Amino acid sequence: MAPFRFELLHQDKKSRARLGRIHTPHGDIQTPAFVAVGTQGSVKSLTPDELKDLGVDVFMVNTYHMYLRPGMDVMKKVGGLHAFMGWNKPIMTDSGGFQVFSLARKKYLASDTGNQSIKIDHPLVKITEDGVEFRSHWDGSKHLFTPKFSMELQWLMGADIHIAFDDCTPYPVTFPQAKKSMERTHRWAKESLKAHRHLRGVKVFTSEVSGNHYQALYGSIQGSIFEKLRKQSAKVISGMDFDGIAIGGVSVGEGKKEMVQVLDWVTPLLPKDTPRHVLGVGEIDDIFELVSRGIDTFDCVQPTRLARMGRLLVGNKQIYKSDKSTNRKFEIDITKKEYSKDTKPIDAACMCYTCKHFSRAYVHHLFRVRELLVYRLATIHNIHFINTLMEDIRSSIADGTFLELTRQYLYHKPRG
Amino acid sequence: MAPFRFELLHQDKKSRARLGRIHTPHGDIQTPAFVAVGTQGSVKSLTPDELKDLGVDVFMVNTYHMYLRPGMDVMKKVGGLHAFMGWNKPIMTDSGGFQVFSLARKKYLASDTGNQSIKIDHPLVKITEDGVEFRSHWDGSKHLFTPKFSMELQWLMGADIHIAFDDCTPYPVTFPQAKKSMERTHRWAKESLKAHRHLRGVKVFTSEVSGNHYQALYGSIQGSIFEKLRKQSAKVISGMDFDGIAIGGVSVGEGKKEMVQVLDWVTPLLPKDTPRHVLGVGEIDDIFELVSRGIDTFDCVQPTRLARMGRLLVGNKQIYKSDKSTNRKFEIDITKKEYSKDTKPIDAACMCYTCKHFSRAYVHHLFRVRELLVYRLATIHNIHFINTLMEDIRSSIADGTFLELTRQYLYHKPRG
Repeated sequence: MAPFRFELLHQDKKSRARLGRIHTPHGDIQTPAFVAVGTQGSVKSLTPDELKDLGVDVFMVNTYHMYLRPGMDVMKKVGGLHAFMGWNKPIMTDSGGFQVFSLARKKYLASDTGNQSIKIDHPLVKITEDGVEFRSHWDGSKHLFTPKFSMELQWLMGADIHIAFDDCTPYPVTFPQAKKSMERTHRWAKESLKAHRHLRGVKVFTSEVSGNHYQALYGSIQGSIFEKLRKQSAKVISGMDFDGIAIGGVSVGEGKKEMVQVLDWVTPLLPKDTPRHVLGVGEIDDIFELVSRGIDTFDCVQPTRLARMGRLLVGNKQIYKSDKSTNRKFEIDITKKEYSKDTKPIDAACMCYTCKHFSRAYVHHLFRVRELLVYRLATIHNIHFINTLMEDIRSSIADGTFLELTRQYLYHKPRG
Repeated sequence: MAPFRFELLHQDKKSRARLGRIHTPHGDIQTPAFVAVGTQGSVKSLTPDELKDLGVDVFMVNTYHMYLRPGMDVMKKVGGLHAFMGWNKPIMTDSGGFQVFSLARKKYLASDTGNQSIKIDHPLVKITEDGVEFRSHWDGSKHLFTPKFSMELQWLMGADIHIAFDDCTPYPVTFPQAKKSMERTHRWAKESLKAHRHLRGVKVFTSEVSGNHYQALYGSIQGSIFEKLRKQSAKVISGMDFDGIAIGGVSVGEGKKEMVQVLDWVTPLLPKDTPRHVLGVGEIDDIFELVSRGIDTFDCVQPTRLARMGRLLVGNKQIYKSDKSTNRKFEIDITKKEYSKDTKPIDAACMCYTCKHFSRAYVHHLFRVRELLVYRLATIHNIHFINTLMEDIRSSIADGTFLELTRQYLYHKPRG
């Protein structure tokens, strides 16, 4: 299988947007790319075939979740994530850190896993120089994640792209706290790299399906909202021998301003020939900000999570005509009564399976009576929407019209 | 579109089993056929395309559920069930009676609709000569179903096969009670027939998709477990001008004996050229009993409901080898720990999408973490199992080996 390689195909002249291709042992990722999230080893409600039909090149699986269930004994036995999930295209795993640091946020985890019975009255997360000690959200049992252990877990799962274990800086935070957290992230980056390199020499799977393919490691930049720290972190992480760069902790802050600023500080300092990933960001308007600043990939649960709530993505143009009840720019809330007799598809221009076969009235009904089928129909629509947008973005970079597309998309004046 | 017609293709010589074809305006139903259930306008978790791929010729939608949600205003607007669900093959609807009479059984309805918040402390079901007054399981509002109203509801939904409104006899029951209930069923059958005929002259839909196709009506036989009543009911209902015969109330009693006996009394009295449906029965061993007694179609939630609980259908042979933990003859409980590292498919011989792509370990994991995808993978497997069995049964009737297949299936001695 081909090793890991980033190919820069075209650099936009009017912005830092770039068109590229990440070659992995399980196939290519066309960039800029949206990375869907399959938290527990499944992009909720969809089969691998549907993901392929939707143009999904890669999705992310959460190490924290897979570590707890099904656990690494199972991963070892089945020969890693590709074989387990029946997905033979690229996979990313995260370091496990983000979920661990988020353990205090019970609500997030509960809604993310569908485990409504979760009850952690005294969530314990203890951060030391070695790593992070935490309790399982399933049964309260105690566990310790270290950089080395995170690398071992990711190696066992055998994704194509791994992320170094970092200290997810809390927010709000003071400069000295952020500095300390960043410095720890840098030390952990070194440890991650060392452990990952060691694992390259170790045969893990006997299974032919998963094999011992090249597994890339991205270093993670932290530094919160401080220019000095972000720039320093960008330089330090770029200076290490990672296959790619991840930027963490950018979806903090009160608005989108902080994110944009962080990217403006960081991306000019990154090497051109290395792929860049932003962790946990991907709302529609974010996407244009990320791409215009030279980000190649980004993962986000938003499109799939919104889908399961009945919030369906549509082009800006339509929104003012079709759903006056919400101010959200790119979505309609299909659970609203106004759609109960609406025989039109969710989006008349959309070519997704859902829009080609079903009316708003049917989707509305299925949500209202909580039929299982609808979470899937909605997820198909939202992923199709994002992936079509990503295709448009890639075409526009290729033919030099990315800024026009951005303007058209974000600042279109509604008719009527 | 072709009118409704039953074609008897072959009569088995060693049993009353028969091979046939029901022609409907939306296509043919090969019989004997299992009729899947799409309670609220969706066979839970599956798309129409998947149902077709699984060889589903027809499924049943519950009038009671559709009447409450989405309601008949929506049905009128969208042009009936075929257009609403995006399903252009045959559909059956029931009379609405069974759910109404079952309203007291809260648990059943709650699990059937996924509405866990349901709370009816004093379910009101009042039966008079006119019909049945009941309260909605959603909001407690009061409603009245009469034979005429049931016919109007079914006509609005535009299924290919309707069922006459009957009095679902409770169980246990005395002879005089059962007689009274049967006589009411007969009066309601007449009223149903009259109302249905009147509707044939009325244009309901303007939509071309649904149109005013021929809609068949099946009369319903009652009489509980009493030979005299069942035989009387069989004669009375057969004597009316119905397109087909439904047999209701056979899944009562303590075991399967009552069901078999009722069928033995009833089916010899039914006309040969009329299709026969049994309401609400369809476990694996039931299927052989039904078919051997000349039943053409039967609907049952069991295979799809079991699927969502992780109870997956497998051939008798395997069961003793693979799941010693349960005594159920035709299923394994995939949620059991013994499957957590099992890299084999659910059933090695199965050609369904799930078995071709995923391991028991993956299906087990998805159930354990409650991932949406799994309800679908399990449903696909169970429907595929039943429909493959039905195909085998039809072939065996055609070549005169139905009784051999029955013996092989039901009485196979496990190895080891």
